[in-house]
Amino acid sequence: MRLALQMAESAMGQTGINPVVGCVLVKNGRIIGMGAHLKRGEGHAEVNALLLAGEEAMGCTAYVTLEPCSHYGKTAPCSDRLIEAGVKRVVVADVDPNPQVAGTGIAKLRSHGLEVEVGLLAGVSSVLNEAFNKYIVTKMPFVTLKTASTLDGRIASKTGHSRWITGEASRAAVHTLRHRHQGILVGVGTVLADDPQLDARLPVPALQPVRLVADSQLRIPLGARVLQEQDRQPTILLAGGQAPAERRAALEARGIEILTCGEGPQVDLALAMRQLGEREIGSILLEGGGRLNGAMLEQRLIDKMVLFYAPKIIGGAGAPANFAFEGFEKMSEAITLERLKVEQFGADICLTGYPQYEREEENG
Amino acid sequence: MRLALQMAESAMGQTGINPVVGCVLVKNGRIIGMGAHLKRGEGHAEVNALLLAGEEAMGCTAYVTLEPCSHYGKTAPCSDRLIEAGVKRVVVADVDPNPQVAGTGIAKLRSHGLEVEVGLLAGVSSVLNEAFNKYIVTKMPFVTLKTASTLDGRIASKTGHSRWITGEASRAAVHTLRHRHQGILVGVGTVLADDPQLDARLPVPALQPVRLVADSQLRIPLGARVLQEQDRQPTILLAGGQAPAERRAALEARGIEILTCGEGPQVDLALAMRQLGEREIGSILLEGGGRLNGAMLEQRLIDKMVLFYAPKIIGGAGAPANFAFEGFEKMSEAITLERLKVEQFGADICLTGYPQYEREEENG
Repeated sequence: MRLALQMAESAMGQTGINPVVGCVLVKNGRIIGMGAHLKRGEGHAEVNALLLAGEEAMGCTAYVTLEPCSHYGKTAPCSDRLIEAGVKRVVVADVDPNPQVAGTGIAKLRSHGLEVEVGLLAGVSSVLNEAFNKYIVTKMPFVTLKTASTLDGRIASKTGHSRWITGEASRAAVHTLRHRHQGILVGVGTVLADDPQLDARLPVPALQPVRLVADSQLRIPLGARVLQEQDRQPTILLAGGQAPAERRAALEARGIEILTCGEGPQVDLALAMRQLGEREIGSILLEGGGRLNGAMLEQRLIDKMVLFYAPKIIGGAGAPANFAFEGFEKMSEAITLERLKVEQFGADICLTGYPQYEREEENG
Repeated sequence: MRLALQMAESAMGQTGINPVVGCVLVKNGRIIGMGAHLKRGEGHAEVNALLLAGEEAMGCTAYVTLEPCSHYGKTAPCSDRLIEAGVKRVVVADVDPNPQVAGTGIAKLRSHGLEVEVGLLAGVSSVLNEAFNKYIVTKMPFVTLKTASTLDGRIASKTGHSRWITGEASRAAVHTLRHRHQGILVGVGTVLADDPQLDARLPVPALQPVRLVADSQLRIPLGARVLQEQDRQPTILLAGGQAPAERRAALEARGIEILTCGEGPQVDLALAMRQLGEREIGSILLEGGGRLNGAMLEQRLIDKMVLFYAPKIIGGAGAPANFAFEGFEKMSEAITLERLKVEQFGADICLTGYPQYEREEENG
């Protein structure tokens, strides 16, 4: 099952809104097949593993990281394929939260006389598929916030200088994060300040997420790097309902897609997320600046945070903060991160956690 | 030597400007004496260990965490005592940086025919004695900054609410830090905002550091908690040269000591540190607020930082930052922390490091 989970993890970022799944087939103490789901619309993990095993599959045990599906989606149900191949026993790590599956895959296997065991290394697959698990139930994208700050919580100096806060190891980790998300979201302020390219740069060719820019008034310059190379990596602008028509026309003439998010002057961020979900963007990496981070946080649209801190102090009362929003009055109202994980990347610290939006009562 | 180091560590905070030292005497495979330096003006570690060993000390090996002293201070030189007791071999972890010792203790032992070995578990004792090591050479106190911030670098909400940012485990660790320093320094802003008591509260009776308040204009209210219980824990106010005479008189009438630091309207912080050093305050725990932290940092007076972060985001542009100062223009000018250590206290993260004031060249 560990191998199956590793195979699943290796496919993170390349299955779109589908979950990552790994499968290992074992018979008489030998591995006779293995596979992972590698691309949406193509073979599921079980099918790929059965392909390798061929007729040997008869009587084997299948270790699968996620409950085999029972419905017709883009491919035939995997539970049927396991039954047809004569698999004797199926060991599943986690149940599929997809309302179209949710236990029916396991029930189907059992009704055909297969032994099914659930819960071996449970939870690991759920974390690998946390974006899928949210999207499949809510149709809203799973949003991971990433920031790179100093120890005084600044994402740039008072003059706006920000290259570089964190070191190479942290920046390399960010490119892996980009590869693993379907979209990257920034505010137009970041585009105006830093003119980033927002692509995933890895030692091997990476998948390029859709670039998303929250730009209520469509202030983005046509020459911005994020608007180039649309064939390789498309960009969608999230605009407010009152963006100037001539800006809209100029951008659309350049083939840039504009998503109008609400009727007000500002982008309705919750609506924007819903619209992106409808377009099958199931995971978004939010890369600030502080105002957009703060607005997304206030609207409780952030599911996970990956906060890099460089061991630096920059100072400056006007230096931009990692979260710029109205803020809370009392410490007990602060948004807390749960399941905190601490990592070191070179000289930098990385804290990963999940924001908890329900507040505790004041206790002191 | 490990035991000797542990004994030394246990005495941290109770030897004043003296170093902590441990000594273990071993003969024929048995420990025959052990001791630590427990209080300034009383027996050194070697003397305490020899006391226990008595006449058995003849021919033994002494493990000492710091080079035995060779000069007459408040007690007779330990190197003489080791020689007189007939110790055969001395194993030393670290050389004493005290200019009055600095190798002369070891030389003296060798000149009397004792075998001396230096460097076993070297460096540990230096860290235990980092405050002593600075003070004995510069006569300036070693300043440890402690902050408790949110992940957005705030030490209070926009309304000034700060109880509590960090959890119980972090706050308990701070009381140990207080016990281990000779003075605690805050700005008068912190006294006005939070009215702290600034004592060390531990499950066992703790030593109480001198309370220091940087208060240029002597704005501190007579009823402030930090001005109470002067018999148990004295307070020294650091004033500017132009503080109102009537405030000065009122405070002095209450028996509060005032140290005038320079002639200008603001406290000259470097001068203040020098004056405190002259008064044999060799270690100070700096507990903010942000303005004092920033000013001390700008003047390069902070030797070490212990930064607690609660996994919380409070927001608010006006919420006070952990470091409030003019700030740098470029990231490459930021003050960096070296030898970073990461610890977890309950849900909180604690980063410890040593500020590096020499800047690197811009490289990006």
